[in-house]
Amino acid sequence: MGFWKSLFSGSDSSTASKMTPGEGYAMEGAGDRTGNGSRIFFSTERDIDLYELEELCDAVGWSRRPLRKVKKAIEHSFLVVSMWDVRGTQRRLVGFARATSDHAFNATIWDVVVHPDFQGKGLGKALMKYAIKKLRSEDISNITLFADPQVVDFYRGINFIADPEGIKGMFWYPD
Amino acid sequence: MGFWKSLFSGSDSSTASKMTPGEGYAMEGAGDRTGNGSRIFFSTERDIDLYELEELCDAVGWSRRPLRKVKKAIEHSFLVVSMWDVRGTQRRLVGFARATSDHAFNATIWDVVVHPDFQGKGLGKALMKYAIKKLRSEDISNITLFADPQVVDFYRGINFIADPEGIKGMFWYPD
Repeated sequence: MGFWKSLFSGSDSSTASKMTPGEGYAMEGAGDRTGNGSRIFFSTERDIDLYELEELCDAVGWSRRPLRKVKKAIEHSFLVVSMWDVRGTQRRLVGFARATSDHAFNATIWDVVVHPDFQGKGLGKALMKYAIKKLRSEDISNITLFADPQVVDFYRGINFIADPEGIKGMFWYPD
Repeated sequence: MGFWKSLFSGSDSSTASKMTPGEGYAMEGAGDRTGNGSRIFFSTERDIDLYELEELCDAVGWSRRPLRKVKKAIEHSFLVVSMWDVRGTQRRLVGFARATSDHAFNATIWDVVVHPDFQGKGLGKALMKYAIKKLRSEDISNITLFADPQVVDFYRGINFIADPEGIKGMFWYPD
């Protein structure tokens, strides 16, 4: 059920369908080529190499988590989005996000990451837009997340509002 | 897999096992009898009468939601907790909460409601403690929620912290 679609239209779009054929996704205004003939693809496939994901999370300095639990979390996420830098037959995982949901009203986006080499190119925004589009297409009306202070402005820039109507994000801590 | 357990110990605890036998749950410091010989029970059963749930949500003034979507949300919640006022063979739904989760790291609690007739007795606290205990027993480390302004202090009172380390709860809105 996963699918691939180039972020940037090009003459060799067959690359996408060779990798994982399926539903297309039209990206809008996401930027241009990243250079060196590479192209950016998105996917909702869940069969992500956990070591490759760990490497991506390492690159942004996240604490390591047990792969067994990461695997379980991916299996039980409502949406898993990955972003790939594709050069010829090579692909590299450069972005990731996932969402939990009740499949009806609410979704919460977790673990949004873009590799530092690919930051500053509008790809985080493209990744989030892709995730939001997917959630909206599943009739999810309430899309939420918990943003670390340094990314609050990034999310503001893509139509997320902090504490709307005084609603507070809260975390439980043991005594 | 569901289970019932009286909030308040009594001589006729067989009521609980007659209704839904299973694992017990020891409630601590939750208050005393609600009067009139009734007792409070908790359950994680999902076969809740949707009309009864709608009536409970009506009682606190929530907007009505399509029952088809409520049913789907309950089916796809990680945890569903209901609170019942039991008098003899009669039971009445007086509280509810549910949580979405990735089954590994994060859970988000939604739709916490206690019937106005049963508020002010510590039952909201008892309901939340029950939910938290269940989530913790499933090895969920990050328990979150989005609190309306008027209940932020209630959640503060049961160890929820708003915006810890500057983390902001954010909601996406269409353009």
